[in-house]
Amino acid sequence: MRLTDYTDYALRTLMYLGLHREQLVTIREISDAYGISNNHLTKVVHQLGLSGMVQTMRGRGGGLRLAMEPGDINLGAVVRLTEPDFNMVECFDPVRNDCVLAPTCQLKDVLRQATQAWLAVLDGVTLDQILSDPKGLRHSVALPVLRLMPAGNKKA
Amino acid sequence: MRLTDYTDYALRTLMYLGLHREQLVTIREISDAYGISNNHLTKVVHQLGLSGMVQTMRGRGGGLRLAMEPGDINLGAVVRLTEPDFNMVECFDPVRNDCVLAPTCQLKDVLRQATQAWLAVLDGVTLDQILSDPKGLRHSVALPVLRLMPAGNKKA
Repeated sequence: MRLTDYTDYALRTLMYLGLHREQLVTIREISDAYGISNNHLTKVVHQLGLSGMVQTMRGRGGGLRLAMEPGDINLGAVVRLTEPDFNMVECFDPVRNDCVLAPTCQLKDVLRQATQAWLAVLDGVTLDQILSDPKGLRHSVALPVLRLMPAGNKKA
Repeated sequence: MRLTDYTDYALRTLMYLGLHREQLVTIREISDAYGISNNHLTKVVHQLGLSGMVQTMRGRGGGLRLAMEPGDINLGAVVRLTEPDFNMVECFDPVRNDCVLAPTCQLKDVLRQATQAWLAVLDGVTLDQILSDPKGLRHSVALPVLRLMPAGNKKA
């Protein structure tokens, strides 16, 4: 059982922006800091922008920043936005379902309860809570940025 | 967020066997009843056999049956057996991890707690509990078997 890389990247993008609130940052900075695909990250950032969590400014000198306070960005809301679905098994998707047990099956209810319990944990956590060790975290993402992105060479 | 088809098939196999305790059943019967791959199911059944949950008997007249009481087969134990991992994001796997946040990141702890909450729900449920409407369930899986597998044409 895994989350998609897309969700992983969305969460890390929000963490990066939460650790660099005093400045605009570029997609390139984030992708270099994490060593992940710039193209994938562009799609993630686009969706975070549409959701209202991230503000994107185009053009020279543009970049990204959080559009909301970290305390208002709920992790449950993020994964609901970025995961394609929570279809634990075939019968969760009426289009794909061929299981003959589906009409009377109670496994589906159990898996739905489990997924609700999973989401409930994330619903109880906001971005600021996972940034509560900002010194250590900022140090972690600052090193690669300084190494890979000298001042004056930043593009959104 | 999804379980693998492998886990889905394992759970459905156990349900099928739990609904047909008075007889040996064949892999072909189960794959026909659910309309799923016989080859995939063979691998699933092999692992369920190794785990001690299912007894397999080879040869003419052979087949499968539960090796444990349904009340002793815990759904949490089944998914722990059949899911390849619960690596929610990259940093759960030290070999794959490249995330610079990993040493100080608290997101991992939150996702681990959420996964524990997910598993705790399944740890509280045994196979007999999801078979508690056996009449309706047995009717569901009996129809395709009768249609597709006339008596005397059953192979393990």
